[in-house]
Amino acid sequence: MNNSTLPNGAQNPDLLEARKAYDALKAKGLKLNMARGKPSGEQLELSRPMLDILDSSSDTNTIDGLDCRNYGELSGIADAKKLFGAYLNVSEDEIIIAGSSSLTFMYDAMARAMLTGVLGSEKPWGSGGKTKFICPVPGYDRHFAICEFLGIEMINVPMNEDGPDMDMVEELVAKDETVKGIWCVPKFSNPLGVTYSNDTIRRLARLKPAAKDFRIFYDNAYAMHYVYNDVPLLDILEECKQAGNPDMVYIFSSTSKITFPGAGVAFFAASKANIAFTLKQLSKQAISWDKLNMLRHVRFLKDMDGVRAIMARHAAILKPRFDAVIASLDELKRLGAGDYQRPDGGYFVAYRAPKGCAKRIVALCKEAGVVLTDAGATHPYGKDPEDSYIRIAPSFPTIDDLRSAMEVFTAAAKLAALE
Amino acid sequence: MNNSTLPNGAQNPDLLEARKAYDALKAKGLKLNMARGKPSGEQLELSRPMLDILDSSSDTNTIDGLDCRNYGELSGIADAKKLFGAYLNVSEDEIIIAGSSSLTFMYDAMARAMLTGVLGSEKPWGSGGKTKFICPVPGYDRHFAICEFLGIEMINVPMNEDGPDMDMVEELVAKDETVKGIWCVPKFSNPLGVTYSNDTIRRLARLKPAAKDFRIFYDNAYAMHYVYNDVPLLDILEECKQAGNPDMVYIFSSTSKITFPGAGVAFFAASKANIAFTLKQLSKQAISWDKLNMLRHVRFLKDMDGVRAIMARHAAILKPRFDAVIASLDELKRLGAGDYQRPDGGYFVAYRAPKGCAKRIVALCKEAGVVLTDAGATHPYGKDPEDSYIRIAPSFPTIDDLRSAMEVFTAAAKLAALE
Repeated sequence: MNNSTLPNGAQNPDLLEARKAYDALKAKGLKLNMARGKPSGEQLELSRPMLDILDSSSDTNTIDGLDCRNYGELSGIADAKKLFGAYLNVSEDEIIIAGSSSLTFMYDAMARAMLTGVLGSEKPWGSGGKTKFICPVPGYDRHFAICEFLGIEMINVPMNEDGPDMDMVEELVAKDETVKGIWCVPKFSNPLGVTYSNDTIRRLARLKPAAKDFRIFYDNAYAMHYVYNDVPLLDILEECKQAGNPDMVYIFSSTSKITFPGAGVAFFAASKANIAFTLKQLSKQAISWDKLNMLRHVRFLKDMDGVRAIMARHAAILKPRFDAVIASLDELKRLGAGDYQRPDGGYFVAYRAPKGCAKRIVALCKEAGVVLTDAGATHPYGKDPEDSYIRIAPSFPTIDDLRSAMEVFTAAAKLAALE
Repeated sequence: MNNSTLPNGAQNPDLLEARKAYDALKAKGLKLNMARGKPSGEQLELSRPMLDILDSSSDTNTIDGLDCRNYGELSGIADAKKLFGAYLNVSEDEIIIAGSSSLTFMYDAMARAMLTGVLGSEKPWGSGGKTKFICPVPGYDRHFAICEFLGIEMINVPMNEDGPDMDMVEELVAKDETVKGIWCVPKFSNPLGVTYSNDTIRRLARLKPAAKDFRIFYDNAYAMHYVYNDVPLLDILEECKQAGNPDMVYIFSSTSKITFPGAGVAFFAASKANIAFTLKQLSKQAISWDKLNMLRHVRFLKDMDGVRAIMARHAAILKPRFDAVIASLDELKRLGAGDYQRPDGGYFVAYRAPKGCAKRIVALCKEAGVVLTDAGATHPYGKDPEDSYIRIAPSFPTIDDLRSAMEVFTAAAKLAALE
């Protein structure tokens, strides 16, 4: 049966028109990519002056006199602990500056937990039996990939407009000691753009897990990454301390979307006890990380005012891109072909297609030269049970390209909905 | 009984004199460190011009047009694969450029093997039961620390003048499938300075391990790091291919002792199949590593001639330091108070004190303000069964400081031997 044939054999004129519109766009032979949250060339230019910060006439010493060119200082340089401690609102002995990728640090923290446990573990997470992690959905595919790779069973929990469904989270952690943690992107979440409410964060900090070595893997990737409006985020480490759970949270972040995504610095914040425990473990893995790049970052960004200034410039570059995506999604929404939540910041807009349409839309876009994140990537094991979420990443293409890509997306979404 | 009292109650004049000499040096209140293989400030200066390589006017693209400032290229940039492929004599698809620390890559490779296995593993190395690793001794304390941290049982095998005792290695790997690998530092080994003979490398490449997923962890840290004379090293990957064991070797290296120890680039070489397998695993851990630093390195070092030129300058700086250490050790050797092998390169000289004296010498040096690597660090679990090896790292102190430190060392060694 031809898809544009109605059950009674007649042609559906809306569908014929949708197919025609899609085919016309496909004929353009576009090659565009909205798959990943990759900053644009314009954004990279904001940090170009950082390349001048250290040259052969530079003093390469930290504020406490350590030469950044040589080995040493596993926890990162004091200068960077000061700045990025302020960024995450933690003290200088509650932070480690390490490497260039927070994702790598998250993987590594999870791998170490599986191999040897965390502070307070009676045995390694991975020592026989199941290990489970709570995954708010839709969420970040790379978080889920870490769990899948390490054989950690993922439990879906829905994301509401104020964060994960905390009733479910509380119940899950209380009853099952194999539930060892939860993934969180607390601000401008990937992909919904949700920021956790104070109530959500307080409930997270007050969890009473059956597992004594439970950890909140708190990926604060977009702490100051607003596009339209910045929104406050309650300080989870402080809340955990007040709740008598100071060691329950691991906070991860980086400058990947402040300076250079390929050459930033990553950091990890947690209670002093967690930091001391982690440093002892890390001393088996590394002598130190690239301190020259830490120094470069601190001398370039200077202080929190410097960070705020560059984030305002990022927002100005991102805003018209988000506008273009949102205009298209509004059109679809008006037509009843799907829905979305308008994010205030972050790197994504999540479109919720009518049930069963997401894979088809992504395939149609691909055929027409527009690459999107795979449908299903927003869920553990790549399985969106309703096949409806599509993550759109507006940052990388030029505005013209983005408009072309969204034309294709809109045409594909209409076609898929009518089919 | 006073230590300087002979069994018959008389005083030993040699011992009295040795104590007097030691006490006089101790009174100087020195503060010197020969503990780690840390390059000196003079060596760091050799790479100072690298800080000028990238500035705000620079093109930050690779030879194939990738912008090093943004995400991407998990295996490292083509430019770096070309240069460091040449450095390790492997092709560009037999190498991954990753991060700034080869130690971190080694740890990570071992951790992944424990968690999920290597290419050809039927199950993870760490999936219940014992996992064993062969450790030629004396060896590198950080290698041993990785095994200890991950619960891998270490088996000592003696180092001969041409590498590990291959009769023992062959026997151990053939009979026990829980023996999953061997640590090797094939050139200017840490701490003996031994370079493996062709015969040793051929026998390594032709091992017939009971474990089908056996791996040689081949830490080629000092591939071009001669001090007196460079010596050839047979190409182990080529030998493994010829022996039908192409996947048996993992080669690790870095520029830590070519450019900046705190901010170099690390690389990993292996068969194409191992590289493809490893990249698939790494894709769960990272998006990419710092490509700007890779670019900085390639544009600074340029090519293998550039590498050879800087290594000659390192050798010129290291030579008088090694001379000073060797002169002192020669004196001790003449007195019958211990022995050493004269290294042609690397970062260490290993002194073999009379049995039972190493801990005492290190303690005496410490009391007199000279910090050495802990006695025992040269062996798994920190246990040198004969308490005789002491690793001396001549690189970091100035020559004057080194001479002072070696005066203390000599006095302490004489005293310990007489005691």
